[in-house]
Amino acid sequence: MAGSTFGSQFKIMTWGESHGKGIGVVVDGCPAGLPLCEADIQKYLNRRKPGQSKFTTQRQEGDQVEILSGVFEGKTTGTPIALEVRNQDQRSRDYSAIKDIYRPGHGDFTFDAKYGFRDYRGGGRSSGRETIGRVAAGAIALKILESLGIGIRAYTKSVGPVAVDPERFDLEEMWQNRLYMPDAQAALEAETYLEEAMARKDSVGGVAECMITGLPPGVGEPVFDKLDASLAKAILSIGAVKAFEIGDGMKAALSTGSSNNDSFCLDSDGRIRKETNHAGGVLGGISDGSTVWFRAAIKPTPSIASPQKSVTRSGKEEELEISGRHDPIIVPRAVVVIEAMAALAVLDLMLAGMSSRMEWLHRIYGENARIFSDIAD
Amino acid sequence: MAGSTFGSQFKIMTWGESHGKGIGVVVDGCPAGLPLCEADIQKYLNRRKPGQSKFTTQRQEGDQVEILSGVFEGKTTGTPIALEVRNQDQRSRDYSAIKDIYRPGHGDFTFDAKYGFRDYRGGGRSSGRETIGRVAAGAIALKILESLGIGIRAYTKSVGPVAVDPERFDLEEMWQNRLYMPDAQAALEAETYLEEAMARKDSVGGVAECMITGLPPGVGEPVFDKLDASLAKAILSIGAVKAFEIGDGMKAALSTGSSNNDSFCLDSDGRIRKETNHAGGVLGGISDGSTVWFRAAIKPTPSIASPQKSVTRSGKEEELEISGRHDPIIVPRAVVVIEAMAALAVLDLMLAGMSSRMEWLHRIYGENARIFSDIAD
Amino acid sequence: MAGSTFGSQFKIMTWGESHGKGIGVVVDGCPAGLPLCEADIQKYLNRRKPGQSKFTTQRQEGDQVEILSGVFEGKTTGTPIALEVRNQDQRSRDYSAIKDIYRPGHGDFTFDAKYGFRDYRGGGRSSGRETIGRVAAGAIALKILESLGIGIRAYTKSVGPVAVDPERFDLEEMWQNRLYMPDAQAALEAETYLEEAMARKDSVGGVAECMITGLPPGVGEPVFDKLDASLAKAILSIGAVKAFEIGDGMKAALSTGSSNNDSFCLDSDGRIRKETNHAGGVLGGISDGSTVWFRAAIKPTPSIASPQKSVTRSGKEEELEISGRHDPIIVPRAVVVIEAMAALAVLDLMLAGMSSRMEWLHRIYGENARIFSDIAD
Amino acid sequence: MAGSTFGSQFKIMTWGESHGKGIGVVVDGCPAGLPLCEADIQKYLNRRKPGQSKFTTQRQEGDQVEILSGVFEGKTTGTPIALEVRNQDQRSRDYSAIKDIYRPGHGDFTFDAKYGFRDYRGGGRSSGRETIGRVAAGAIALKILESLGIGIRAYTKSVGPVAVDPERFDLEEMWQNRLYMPDAQAALEAETYLEEAMARKDSVGGVAECMITGLPPGVGEPVFDKLDASLAKAILSIGAVKAFEIGDGMKAALSTGSSNNDSFCLDSDGRIRKETNHAGGVLGGISDGSTVWFRAAIKPTPSIASPQKSVTRSGKEEELEISGRHDPIIVPRAVVVIEAMAALAVLDLMLAGMSSRMEWLHRIYGENARIFSDIAD
Repeated sequence: MAGSTFGSQFKIMTWGESHGKGIGVVVDGCPAGLPLCEADIQKYLNRRKPGQSKFTTQRQEGDQVEILSGVFEGKTTGTPIALEVRNQDQRSRDYSAIKDIYRPGHGDFTFDAKYGFRDYRGGGRSSGRETIGRVAAGAIALKILESLGIGIRAYTKSVGPVAVDPERFDLEEMWQNRLYMPDAQAALEAETYLEEAMARKDSVGGVAECMITGLPPGVGEPVFDKLDASLAKAILSIGAVKAFEIGDGMKAALSTGSSNNDSFCLDSDGRIRKETNHAGGVLGGISDGSTVWFRAAIKPTPSIASPQKSVTRSGKEEELEISGRHDPIIVPRAVVVIEAMAALAVLDLMLAGMSSRMEWLHRIYGENARIFSDIAD
Repeated sequence: MAGSTFGSQFKIMTWGESHGKGIGVVVDGCPAGLPLCEADIQKYLNRRKPGQSKFTTQRQEGDQVEILSGVFEGKTTGTPIALEVRNQDQRSRDYSAIKDIYRPGHGDFTFDAKYGFRDYRGGGRSSGRETIGRVAAGAIALKILESLGIGIRAYTKSVGPVAVDPERFDLEEMWQNRLYMPDAQAALEAETYLEEAMARKDSVGGVAECMITGLPPGVGEPVFDKLDASLAKAILSIGAVKAFEIGDGMKAALSTGSSNNDSFCLDSDGRIRKETNHAGGVLGGISDGSTVWFRAAIKPTPSIASPQKSVTRSGKEEELEISGRHDPIIVPRAVVVIEAMAALAVLDLMLAGMSSRMEWLHRIYGENARIFSDIAD
Repeated sequence: MAGSTFGSQFKIMTWGESHGKGIGVVVDGCPAGLPLCEADIQKYLNRRKPGQSKFTTQRQEGDQVEILSGVFEGKTTGTPIALEVRNQDQRSRDYSAIKDIYRPGHGDFTFDAKYGFRDYRGGGRSSGRETIGRVAAGAIALKILESLGIGIRAYTKSVGPVAVDPERFDLEEMWQNRLYMPDAQAALEAETYLEEAMARKDSVGGVAECMITGLPPGVGEPVFDKLDASLAKAILSIGAVKAFEIGDGMKAALSTGSSNNDSFCLDSDGRIRKETNHAGGVLGGISDGSTVWFRAAIKPTPSIASPQKSVTRSGKEEELEISGRHDPIIVPRAVVVIEAMAALAVLDLMLAGMSSRMEWLHRIYGENARIFSDIAD
Repeated sequence: MAGSTFGSQFKIMTWGESHGKGIGVVVDGCPAGLPLCEADIQKYLNRRKPGQSKFTTQRQEGDQVEILSGVFEGKTTGTPIALEVRNQDQRSRDYSAIKDIYRPGHGDFTFDAKYGFRDYRGGGRSSGRETIGRVAAGAIALKILESLGIGIRAYTKSVGPVAVDPERFDLEEMWQNRLYMPDAQAALEAETYLEEAMARKDSVGGVAECMITGLPPGVGEPVFDKLDASLAKAILSIGAVKAFEIGDGMKAALSTGSSNNDSFCLDSDGRIRKETNHAGGVLGGISDGSTVWFRAAIKPTPSIASPQKSVTRSGKEEELEISGRHDPIIVPRAVVVIEAMAALAVLDLMLAGMSSRMEWLHRIYGENARIFSDIAD
């Protein structure tokens, strides 16, 4: 359990530091035959790239991904896919401000406690840049899920107290504003709220929401590897996430059985459906065929320009001032990371779940001849 | 990723169905030399046993655990520890009410979707009795942590709208009421609220909170196996849990960096401490030495006596009435399960983390002679 | 990597000591829908049971297996299958002979070195009885493979210098003698050789061979989880196995490329075949559709009645005499264990390999409706 | 179990194809604080580099490794270490000779059978170049083991029928000849034997032997993750290895208990030792403190210049002639790969084994203060 590895069947290993030579990921276990090119991955990386608006750090990074292995003649071969982004903006800096002092809200102190020392340049491994590997691998998972009719979409549900109004909810609208909020008016109010925070040299938190559509029932394992539990770990593993809610989430604690239970019914085609979806598309830890929806609470950016009290490695109390521009809010850039992690968790469960029935085993290994003929054509 | 296996170093595999021959767990990877007897485990099982109050099902089960292996002359040997509880109350029942119909809020439908059929007797594997294996294994993890000065305590924070009042918070009080609420007055109000729900043939939800004290800094892995992410998966894997919050949780989304950041300071002994603990004892996914605290939202018991709409396996709409007594609330019996899962998650990270420093590696393998002399004495 | 867990998709955890309460295994990840009853497992356990001939220990054990979970109405449900054999013959013995002294060729010394102490009763966890869990789980794997037309058969190839004569090889013959040798005459000579060894209070080694037929091409992963590498680990994990050979094995080291390469050709149906099988059915670590065959060298039983030099825990040199009857050879009883381990390794690779192609993924998750209809019928 | 991932605590993921952009590996779980630079890794890569003698392919590759992450100020940080070697000699070739035809003794056919198609350029993922990732990661493991006084050395024991003479065995001599044979005279005879084979456009097999010294007793897990079983899988996972022997290996099958058992005795310092080492340093799957020694049989290079019979993807019989220079023997270049895989297997077991005793757990987590002070200095 070394930390930077995720998944059992669709297994990824990410690497890289904020100011090291680069950031990357290797995907081991991608099914063979998926059409894949760098553009499929780049489009997701561009969504998390810095310097896109006044609400994101101005660090200059092209974040261009390179596929180094596992793809031949435009298709995945079934062997490991190595993806790499070289860091550009790593000009030597003055790190004295963070070299010896522990930034509140950051992992500086705990990395020292765990390893005895740390790569303090830009936060090293605990920098937001670490998510490049997640997004790059997630892009592949998302393309596989898409081919099965499964869609994953995350967006900003609230910025501080400014929340999307269900009445005005319009998913397409999220592409029209830098905050990825599916509500134009809320986005405007949120921008004003953010500017005020920035003027105060402060930062704000928010909530991201994600919907998974088209997921067949039967995905997720009973007991420990439940779909919702796996999603929770995937999402909480993203820095700054402080809470995870599936379906009604915390609200379920205030509800009663008679109103929280989702009644089953038949749709016009006589197919089994639910009248409501308080559960968030999961029953007993297994997908029920309805939309899976969950939320993540994201804390305010810990890097703020206003002075903070802290201590040094050597145990001296000192005041800290973090220079440079930082995102005043993390949520908008986390949205694509959430989509990536959700895709990685769901796909891994789907691949592992392929062996859950004898009938499915026979569907693939039943007739040996089948496999030979696969080659011939 | 077969579902009933948890942990990488302290690995457990649970088994058993509600109305099968029994329930059990095997622990593979328990360090050798831990004093262990059945009473160490029984005391935790007794806390989740049915029939303890008017708020728990009246099913008669002794839930007596038997240690079948891995312990010799009162100490763990380092080999697998098999723990088993035989079911007593499994007199043949009339299952026609649930055999063919899908109970809302249960995994009946999704188990059929995943496996093609299911053991419908009392919910089979998705019954609350499945948690016996978790609690039995967790009891061992809790004893190991205790020997290191680490304590884990969960309690009922709220029952529906009735919450513990921070002013009246008294941990010892939790042992004085059947709801495990650390606030006598809140417990009384909650009991009234529960009786009203029962009279309506309804059930209610609630929130459980857990505190982990004495955990050294440095526990948890960066990136995917963060301490909070691992706790989230462990807790969400408990049936009926719909949300997980670490520290301030959802509240962090409404906060600002200046108030959400926990400043570092020095205590009287000149040791590094934090002035606040909004983070919940975790920074960058790694424990920071302060108390780890988190909450879980638990949905209302899905089994209610009032009639519900549903459909049958064969796709007919039918009304369902669930007979028999069921817990009107899950939280009080889930509390010990939460302690067990938290212990399993934390201990596994601690064992895996032993190899995070060269210096620690040398502390154990540095002098071979050391190992020989271990034998001699 | 706690030691008693095997497999990634078809995962098993074994437990139990020679003179503890029993021996067992839990199988997590068995596909749902396999017809299974205790007789399916018992027939394999009976082949490794003690007291079957003058060449096996006279310990009295019924070795009756009980299925405790995971099977409902005669079929596996997809949830963990717990299998248990309670020890009968555990009357308290005088262990003074082995309590403090290290038996040569046994794990007594190394268990002390690893854990600081050990369960010395009958060898504890390192006893041959540990294989009961392997055989019980392997019986399930073998039944699954059988349903796919895959057969696994191991037999005794040689007893000391007495080897099966290829000219006289007759697989059915193995059932006619206690040594499981597919050659009546070799079996007779081997019995004489064994009786001489027993008269000398000595023991002998031998070789077991195994054939896997009907395995489709494409099973096994490139690089680290090759089919032959996985078989090697599975077989070497059986106590007393000292070598593993796939195909020509050691002989390949003396061969040349021109004679060692297996030429490809077409059979009468125009299907791709190999003219020879020096490779043992594996190319690049992946099955090629021909028979997989391998051998295991098994050392002589370390427990011999003649006096041996050794030392005690406290570091005193002493002479050791092991009393009681022991198998003068391990091979015949290891044969069924080899079949079990080979089945576990092959099945696990087949289940993991189900996700190796996009086309296979679509075959199972392609049409959601498919899954619903599965339920209805 | 996706195939290119090895290890549970010291986990590596390798990637890359023979004629792709490069080859690499990521190491997740390396302890923090190990001094590491590219030269530490390069010295091992240089031993497997092509073009070193008339007995190795003339392909021109610098095989220069680059460390991309996980090292800061000359020490490992505990985060993933990404190592990369870019391919240089990948000028477009004429692959028509191998594009559609299956080379005997290669994985061409089985890759098609598994994945439906393959990267045929130079064997793609199944090329010998894949071992670059193993050697690079192994170099780190070897440096860690070295710091603990553990040495691993492999050499060529025999080339075809020409074997090292125990009388003339001189480990240092292996560095004096291109075949890495610790016997000057045998090396000369072997070279003559090889030249004859090359003249015949043929190739030859051989045996490599490996010794692990200084390994403390107690390494390896009972049952499935035995030290010898883990080594067997690690070694058999190297392409072309057809057999694995620990200690006496196959010879043990011809021995008797009285001569095969290694008696225990006391050395002059009163420490427990063995009088012989037929077992190869492993008892019950756990290291016993004596030298661990094993052998691997390596088949002749399958790529030979003389014409061979084969078939095409489309199922036509055709004669194949493989052009270009290939190693006439694999053993000498495999020697460093064997050292690397042995190191990876042993180190992983040692890291996992750190949690095998309560006492060791307390040695690391016993006093929290300890951890704080680690930071200060």
